[in-house]
Amino acid sequence: MQSRLSAVKSQVQAALDRAIGDLPGGELRDAMAYACAGGKRIRAFLVMESARLHGVPDDAALPVAAAVEALHAYSLVHDDLPAMDDDDLRRGQPTVHVKWSEATAILAGDALQSLAFGLLADPAIGDAATRRLVAAFAQAVGGAGMVWGQALDIKAETAVTPLTLDQITRLQGGKTGALIRFAAIAGPLIADADPAPLAAYAEALGLAFQIADDILDVTGNEDVTGKRVGKDASAGKATFVSLLGLDGARAEAARLVADADAALAPYGENAANLRQLARFVIERDT
Amino acid sequence: MQSRLSAVKSQVQAALDRAIGDLPGGELRDAMAYACAGGKRIRAFLVMESARLHGVPDDAALPVAAAVEALHAYSLVHDDLPAMDDDDLRRGQPTVHVKWSEATAILAGDALQSLAFGLLADPAIGDAATRRLVAAFAQAVGGAGMVWGQALDIKAETAVTPLTLDQITRLQGGKTGALIRFAAIAGPLIADADPAPLAAYAEALGLAFQIADDILDVTGNEDVTGKRVGKDASAGKATFVSLLGLDGARAEAARLVADADAALAPYGENAANLRQLARFVIERDT
Repeated sequence: MQSRLSAVKSQVQAALDRAIGDLPGGELRDAMAYACAGGKRIRAFLVMESARLHGVPDDAALPVAAAVEALHAYSLVHDDLPAMDDDDLRRGQPTVHVKWSEATAILAGDALQSLAFGLLADPAIGDAATRRLVAAFAQAVGGAGMVWGQALDIKAETAVTPLTLDQITRLQGGKTGALIRFAAIAGPLIADADPAPLAAYAEALGLAFQIADDILDVTGNEDVTGKRVGKDASAGKATFVSLLGLDGARAEAARLVADADAALAPYGENAANLRQLARFVIERDT
Repeated sequence: MQSRLSAVKSQVQAALDRAIGDLPGGELRDAMAYACAGGKRIRAFLVMESARLHGVPDDAALPVAAAVEALHAYSLVHDDLPAMDDDDLRRGQPTVHVKWSEATAILAGDALQSLAFGLLADPAIGDAATRRLVAAFAQAVGGAGMVWGQALDIKAETAVTPLTLDQITRLQGGKTGALIRFAAIAGPLIADADPAPLAAYAEALGLAFQIADDILDVTGNEDVTGKRVGKDASAGKATFVSLLGLDGARAEAARLVADADAALAPYGENAANLRQLARFVIERDT
């Protein structure tokens, strides 16, 4: 898996650099490029593996992988804003609004979202596949997906009663789960195949990913994670760790990885990379 | 023209209400609906007329018209933010961040952009047309279009030397011109026809529109425009009025309306509504 992940990383970075390099120069473009640098590229990897499992060639899958990462980058830039999570550090670097300004961060995020949708119109993808991808992407991102989850999360911060496990699970299903689900079903979407097995895989993976994030917020090292840790606990925010305890959260993450594994049964050994990814997601230290 | 504009207004409002109504309820959805209420719907009208001139049926054009208005609504919500133009009044009502919060305004804008792209995936449009629209829309909105123009505008506010006429023309060509151009060429884009005449029309129209806005900022009545007036002058910002004088700006707007008229020659009498729109744009008081 690691060599495939490295290859995807450089392919996707090159695709993003090309797309951003086509824009007029200036602070806005610099901030967009800055926001798109680095990252684990787990979502891009999901797209490329999901495409491979469905016989979709790399040149059709790559723009989709780049779109998902551009979208993810926009969401981080906006989430870090003072009016949102107010974070000054991301991937070990100052966040966009700290390095430039709030206005530039808002605009860079906005432009990254447009860029992401534009990448889905790549002719290599095919017209019908583009239509399916755009519809599913809009659903995953907007007022019923990622943005909806983030709105719930912001609201929860000022709520009197902390969220229940069921509420957090639904919230995270939007905030982080929706985009991970889109990435995982990109292959079936392009190939017009049944997305159900990969959707089930993604549901377990997304939740495991979030639980691992909550664990890292408690046990992580800022120098390694590259972002502030201990924020949720000090904000008195309900997390999977506060609700299940550290051991309970670890057990739940392990259970979800087993679920993710089971969901991949129809793909057999072909899905070895995706199985490894699920384990990587809960074992990572960043 | 007025009866067609009224009809477009109610059709587009219904389409937006349907799309937003499909989302999960809550503050985010309320803020999105609020941001999409009212407005002159000039961009939607452009889409519908451009489509009619190219034999595109209303059910294929309407989602595009709604997309353009949703996108326009997002841009207003983000432009009004404290970190941007810091406006508390829009269409005679408190702006979204005043009525709810900055976080809700950022998220509602983000979700409206996703919604706009999602509308372009309406099956009635046709797969190939959807691909062309998504590519052109991303170009019109993102880091080479509207957002790029807004970034220049924000930058100009803190610049030591005011912008020149040439610089303002380019800036506005992005900030307001790019989306107007997209709306005007939506018909040829869907029908896969030559967009050149309508693109030339839109270029003149967009600039005339902006000059009229600058004139209204000087001569307008807050009760009628529904937004703060005199902001640009008090900020010492270069505008078409500060550069050309009031009479010079009026003369330039009139000249541009004549250009817009001339560009429509290939459409003859069929383009009567678009000719009237160009006159309306510089005569409006709101």
